Amino acid sequence: MPAAFLKHPFMSQRAVAECDDDAMVNAMLAFELALAEVQETSGAVPAGVSQQMREQLESATFNVADIAEGIASGGNAAIPFVKQSRALLADEIKRYWHQGATSQDVVDSALMLLIKPRLAALNDLLLRCRSAAVALMDTHIDTPMVGRTLMQQALPIVFGVKVAHWAIGLEQTRRRLSAVELPVQFGGAVGVHSGWDNLGLEWMDALAERLGLSVPVLPWHTDRYPIHVLGTALDAVAGAAEKIALDVSLLTQTEVGEVAEPSAPGMGESSSMPHKRNPVRSALIRGAARQVHGHTSVLINAAAQPLERGLGEWHAEWAPLMEGVLLVEGALEQVVVLLEGLEVYPDNMWRNLAATGGGIMAEPAARLLAPTLGVEKAKAVSAEAAETSRREARPYSEVLAEHPDVKGAVDPDALRNACDPALYLGSSAAQITRVKKWLEAQ
Amino acid sequence: MPAAFLKHPFMSQRAVAECDDDAMVNAMLAFELALAEVQETSGAVPAGVSQQMREQLESATFNVADIAEGIASGGNAAIPFVKQSRALLADEIKRYWHQGATSQDVVDSALMLLIKPRLAALNDLLLRCRSAAVALMDTHIDTPMVGRTLMQQALPIVFGVKVAHWAIGLEQTRRRLSAVELPVQFGGAVGVHSGWDNLGLEWMDALAERLGLSVPVLPWHTDRYPIHVLGTALDAVAGAAEKIALDVSLLTQTEVGEVAEPSAPGMGESSSMPHKRNPVRSALIRGAARQVHGHTSVLINAAAQPLERGLGEWHAEWAPLMEGVLLVEGALEQVVVLLEGLEVYPDNMWRNLAATGGGIMAEPAARLLAPTLGVEKAKAVSAEAAETSRREARPYSEVLAEHPDVKGAVDPDALRNACDPALYLGSSAAQITRVKKWLEAQ
Amino acid sequence: MPAAFLKHPFMSQRAVAECDDDAMVNAMLAFELALAEVQETSGAVPAGVSQQMREQLESATFNVADIAEGIASGGNAAIPFVKQSRALLADEIKRYWHQGATSQDVVDSALMLLIKPRLAALNDLLLRCRSAAVALMDTHIDTPMVGRTLMQQALPIVFGVKVAHWAIGLEQTRRRLSAVELPVQFGGAVGVHSGWDNLGLEWMDALAERLGLSVPVLPWHTDRYPIHVLGTALDAVAGAAEKIALDVSLLTQTEVGEVAEPSAPGMGESSSMPHKRNPVRSALIRGAARQVHGHTSVLINAAAQPLERGLGEWHAEWAPLMEGVLLVEGALEQVVVLLEGLEVYPDNMWRNLAATGGGIMAEPAARLLAPTLGVEKAKAVSAEAAETSRREARPYSEVLAEHPDVKGAVDPDALRNACDPALYLGSSAAQITRVKKWLEAQ
Amino acid sequence: MPAAFLKHPFMSQRAVAECDDDAMVNAMLAFELALAEVQETSGAVPAGVSQQMREQLESATFNVADIAEGIASGGNAAIPFVKQSRALLADEIKRYWHQGATSQDVVDSALMLLIKPRLAALNDLLLRCRSAAVALMDTHIDTPMVGRTLMQQALPIVFGVKVAHWAIGLEQTRRRLSAVELPVQFGGAVGVHSGWDNLGLEWMDALAERLGLSVPVLPWHTDRYPIHVLGTALDAVAGAAEKIALDVSLLTQTEVGEVAEPSAPGMGESSSMPHKRNPVRSALIRGAARQVHGHTSVLINAAAQPLERGLGEWHAEWAPLMEGVLLVEGALEQVVVLLEGLEVYPDNMWRNLAATGGGIMAEPAARLLAPTLGVEKAKAVSAEAAETSRREARPYSEVLAEHPDVKGAVDPDALRNACDPALYLGSSAAQITRVKKWLEAQ
Repeated sequence: MPAAFLKHPFMSQRAVAECDDDAMVNAMLAFELALAEVQETSGAVPAGVSQQMREQLESATFNVADIAEGIASGGNAAIPFVKQSRALLADEIKRYWHQGATSQDVVDSALMLLIKPRLAALNDLLLRCRSAAVALMDTHIDTPMVGRTLMQQALPIVFGVKVAHWAIGLEQTRRRLSAVELPVQFGGAVGVHSGWDNLGLEWMDALAERLGLSVPVLPWHTDRYPIHVLGTALDAVAGAAEKIALDVSLLTQTEVGEVAEPSAPGMGESSSMPHKRNPVRSALIRGAARQVHGHTSVLINAAAQPLERGLGEWHAEWAPLMEGVLLVEGALEQVVVLLEGLEVYPDNMWRNLAATGGGIMAEPAARLLAPTLGVEKAKAVSAEAAETSRREARPYSEVLAEHPDVKGAVDPDALRNACDPALYLGSSAAQITRVKKWLEAQ
Repeated sequence: MPAAFLKHPFMSQRAVAECDDDAMVNAMLAFELALAEVQETSGAVPAGVSQQMREQLESATFNVADIAEGIASGGNAAIPFVKQSRALLADEIKRYWHQGATSQDVVDSALMLLIKPRLAALNDLLLRCRSAAVALMDTHIDTPMVGRTLMQQALPIVFGVKVAHWAIGLEQTRRRLSAVELPVQFGGAVGVHSGWDNLGLEWMDALAERLGLSVPVLPWHTDRYPIHVLGTALDAVAGAAEKIALDVSLLTQTEVGEVAEPSAPGMGESSSMPHKRNPVRSALIRGAARQVHGHTSVLINAAAQPLERGLGEWHAEWAPLMEGVLLVEGALEQVVVLLEGLEVYPDNMWRNLAATGGGIMAEPAARLLAPTLGVEKAKAVSAEAAETSRREARPYSEVLAEHPDVKGAVDPDALRNACDPALYLGSSAAQITRVKKWLEAQ
Repeated sequence: MPAAFLKHPFMSQRAVAECDDDAMVNAMLAFELALAEVQETSGAVPAGVSQQMREQLESATFNVADIAEGIASGGNAAIPFVKQSRALLADEIKRYWHQGATSQDVVDSALMLLIKPRLAALNDLLLRCRSAAVALMDTHIDTPMVGRTLMQQALPIVFGVKVAHWAIGLEQTRRRLSAVELPVQFGGAVGVHSGWDNLGLEWMDALAERLGLSVPVLPWHTDRYPIHVLGTALDAVAGAAEKIALDVSLLTQTEVGEVAEPSAPGMGESSSMPHKRNPVRSALIRGAARQVHGHTSVLINAAAQPLERGLGEWHAEWAPLMEGVLLVEGALEQVVVLLEGLEVYPDNMWRNLAATGGGIMAEPAARLLAPTLGVEKAKAVSAEAAETSRREARPYSEVLAEHPDVKGAVDPDALRNACDPALYLGSSAAQITRVKKWLEAQ
Repeated sequence: MPAAFLKHPFMSQRAVAECDDDAMVNAMLAFELALAEVQETSGAVPAGVSQQMREQLESATFNVADIAEGIASGGNAAIPFVKQSRALLADEIKRYWHQGATSQDVVDSALMLLIKPRLAALNDLLLRCRSAAVALMDTHIDTPMVGRTLMQQALPIVFGVKVAHWAIGLEQTRRRLSAVELPVQFGGAVGVHSGWDNLGLEWMDALAERLGLSVPVLPWHTDRYPIHVLGTALDAVAGAAEKIALDVSLLTQTEVGEVAEPSAPGMGESSSMPHKRNPVRSALIRGAARQVHGHTSVLINAAAQPLERGLGEWHAEWAPLMEGVLLVEGALEQVVVLLEGLEVYPDNMWRNLAATGGGIMAEPAARLLAPTLGVEKAKAVSAEAAETSRREARPYSEVLAEHPDVKGAVDPDALRNACDPALYLGSSAAQITRVKKWLEAQ
């Protein structure tokens, strides 16, 4: 396989192991056995045959390499799998194997079966993230820090609010993901259960139940809406993780130093620089998310598939879909570690709040001055003072108080208060309370 | 503006007209006026001021060119709009204008206001598509045609089933779209309602109600989940439309001729070839959908935005989002025409069913022969006969009946029936019934 | 690893085997050994040390699993590789290992080393395609077929011209690819050869020569132009392959039947339908190309990397780049088979030319009539006759000759000739000659 | 048109004005007139007719709205343009208008004509960037600053080297862009000059010369390689501009403060915060680049076009291509301003170099200690000292000198020098010299 070094660091290793070729064989087998059982129930397979199949195949060892080899000629894994598995069956029951099914039924359903436990794993990871975020929000409900817009210092917020936004991002995608349906695929050669008439739809519904998958309206060979929903929901999770990694990367810059990734022996080491501690988890999350967006781009460009089966469009979905899942799970594993162990430095936050000599408080100062000086003048004066404060490295409130237009015109205490970041946190605390309530609502 | 010729053909012209710069100015104005009203209710603006503002501004003529000019220095339309509108107000009320708001509050909310009627328009178009599809399904519940997989003739379906799939595709995206929330944006400079404490959240909620927008959990300056949901839902609609256009394009090929776009004077004309009737509507739909996918790619790659305001990521969303809406609406306008007026040629469908001399019936023939000849032999014999039938241009059932392994071994009538496409339609009718029930469920 | 079934069918198996983790280890080793040799030449490593390193390491067995495990903490494969390889060296020479290098130097250079033979392989495949295309062009220099625009029959071309276009597409991308430079990477921790002053650039240049890579202007840690050039050149190859697969898919449709993929035992078989022969190679090419476009989307969105090393942007490149190469090679392997063995059916081409009763000749007919009837009238008459011919299934030239405005007004022989596709091939032959000359020019 | 507010800020306004519908009409007109002239030269149009056409049409006023209206039925602007322009001609010469051409010939060639002056404008802008960058490199050839990898402080570089990288990025794309060919399109209905035989290729070549466009190998109706080359070259320019904007955004952060966008009245103002100066130009560049990547994604996904004319694939190219050009030009206009007026703060660079108390010098310190302590021990000691220095806010060289393993073991002067950033600039100066030479080479 192509250098795993280049790809596996971004993926959940547990998930990778559970989605290998053996797992795919097992999933295809589960589909075919369930189909035989369903058909036996309706009399289309003689009594006892499905049990025979299960016995003959569940203990069998499949030759994965042969299946891989066989894909080239039929174009998908189901064709050589069906051949190989049929060959393992007793002659008299061979004809009931894969009855009424087409290869896309097998592959699509097997993919859904592989993905189902992954969505559960994603949900668990997202719940762990949520708990960790709530703990951080509680701890930092009144930890002031500077808010930054267009990456410039703007006005104070509290760190808990920033975490609240991360939590909203993750939880929104968790809820979206939990509403995603993974439908069974079963339609036969052209999707109309040729040769089986109305039994076809009955079997489809029964199959879904037996396999724990959703019931589609119809077979969806070229209605790729379920893939679109799944792929874009995964992409949203990737985006929510990426936002956190982006913020952590920015806040962890040497000059900012407000948070750090959890330290651990060897983590973030450089091959040449002993003093460095790289935000490796953030790099891996961001790397994963970007790859997910590329995969999503493949999926959305392949949504329209021709007539009754894609000619390449379907085939193009497999890897982007499966790897999208594994990348998102990998990214979330990192996010869990980040949120559960994030190192937060309130002192540095406070230091940075003072970095402009208080000039970030020009807006509240302007508001305070507006009734006296008029809006435009107030803005001009407060901006001028900010510039002076920055240039002369003097406290903003002091510079402002001495400004000829201000001196004597405004109450000095009010002015000092207007320039105190810790008194200018707006709805921060209320926001945290609101978000916690919302998080608990589901 | 850059050559409209290259872009407007794909868009809804009605929608384009309703989303121009004047409309954007009106939407920004609506936001600011509603904000003043909400603040007046809570006492933060003196009684009567919001009414004054409305009077002074609703009759005013805005200088759109000046606003456009002013964007360059602040980076968004709200900044020059706020300046220009404030200048139009009486001095004594100027200070209450845009109070507590930031430019992103204005732009995001204005975009949501512009998009809201568009989503309603999309819903209406999708409902028209649904009705037209149901009518086609009813008409063609037993119109046999060949199903094609990997663009090769496979086995019979009915045309109504194909339309049922189109209807599912559109209706699924309609339901997804109708669940999309368009939240108001209101958070002030860094999203925590600096200077207004808990009033901020109250105003945000009241603004949403007053403007007919959704209430977000928190201001979402850098939680771009609403944009992701909206953008990917639009992309799904584009995909559903694209699937229909792709099928129509394929079925309308000269050699296939099973359907044609509705004829109209001048439609589909070529600049040089008098005999041609190009599937222009399909081309425009497919052209629009591809552009939408590109826009979606921008949106998903911009989902993670830094800290409290994006630096380019936010700005990059505007055009892809707005144009995505206009392209989807344009595509759906074409789909409505296609579905309401599609020309369907059952005779040609029947002709194509016979194109292989009946060889597409090799699968049911094999099934009939399997109990007698065994699965593998049955497949081989039926495939061999298909080849002979094609080569010698003789009816498949006839060739098969004369095959040495078949002659005498199988009942000729059963064989003839097994080779009759009209008797091999599987669950087609049941599928149509099922889909109609599902369509009506919401 | 995640289900190879879903991904490997699209890739070159030979290439996959040559780009596995062992190959990556060897490439990283080659880089470090070459670096030591270069440094020894300039005296920065004692004489004989590089030879010792080579002896101690080339025979060593690397523990790939340990390296894989170690990636998580440093974020790339070079860090654990350097550790593991250094541990294998005698103590007294350990300090000269990886001297002056950073992990990105190792990984980027190793990737270039892995890709270099792949570009050669792509070139070989493209040359084979070119030869095969020339042979097809020669054979079909006067094989008429209908040209189709917007997938509607338009006017005659010859099959050789279609192949000429395929050949141009492939050859243009071959030339672009052959101009792509694969530069060595060597800049040390921050790209300025910290601690080694001007030796750094000398070593960089010498390394490039020793490794057979290109010399960059400077280390390109965050100047990702070489990746952009490579990625987009690969994408262009994918597009050229995809165009051929798309045309083959369309021409191979049951109703068209003008070409077929080369037949081979088992190729294109269906899991359920014995008569089918699916264009599997085209499906795999199209599937591969779509995935390549997704990878390219990742690369172009990661082109801008921050400051002196990416934080996720760099990491995101690895898999899309490597897998892009493997997918393109896989696609070209299929294109070679297609072009070398394509089954062409001139009879069916001729049959399709007649499918409209000759109505595709309305344009030359109109041209013939224009001097007599005027342009607009000529167009109207010829279109009307096309419609009649189609409706009544009578030869177009006959219908046209009897049209009241035409009868007696135009020479019947001229009319018949104007309606003969084989006499209306334009510059087809000249085009083929021109293309052959162009192909041979390089 | 859809809200220009959302899109035009990112585009070159000059370029937008030169690419409007009128410009498109003029370009189509130029194509048709040149065609008539070329045909007149070869006798296919009577002498004097092309001059008549020019006289009758160049003074005519075209009804752009009517053309826009007419696009819907034919699917592109050429069809209604040809109709409208033909109607303006004297009857006796009408038939020579658009002779032998198809609408795609007109549209593709007109697009190339519109884009040609834009590429020249891009080249000019890139040359201005280059000059500005060289000036910055000269000024800052020995301005030390910290290099940052994974956004963490790493080791010293000089600012001039950073600018050198920007210059390389821009110049590489300038050279790529200057090699892009804009071919004329001329093939007639199906690309083989139907009805004109070998004259067709002659006319194509003559047209190219007359219009100042490149000569293609063949008409390229569905060989979209020229679009791929152009689109990806533009994307590379966008990426190079985006890298600069990203670096400026990061270096301009309040806490970093090493550079600032050129100040100008009103630039970067906030709608609410008087003290802020937002890096608006960087935001607009980054916003533009992201949109370009989305457009590129459309182009690469549309590279494979069916048979002799796309069905939506071609149509999807127009806007992304044209707007891609306008966005890139807009971005470069901003980059020129940035580079020509960038404010650089060497003092802040020096301050940041000291931010870790010198701990960034752990690597050279480790190198100095390695011969004495061994590689691993040296790394451990120097890292430990970095940690102590950071924790105790004491100079790194001092802490290190007092370390028990170091004290007495190493020459204090050597140690101090090893910890001096200004003495550890590697090949910085040599790199700048090298880059200047390379820049001047073309």
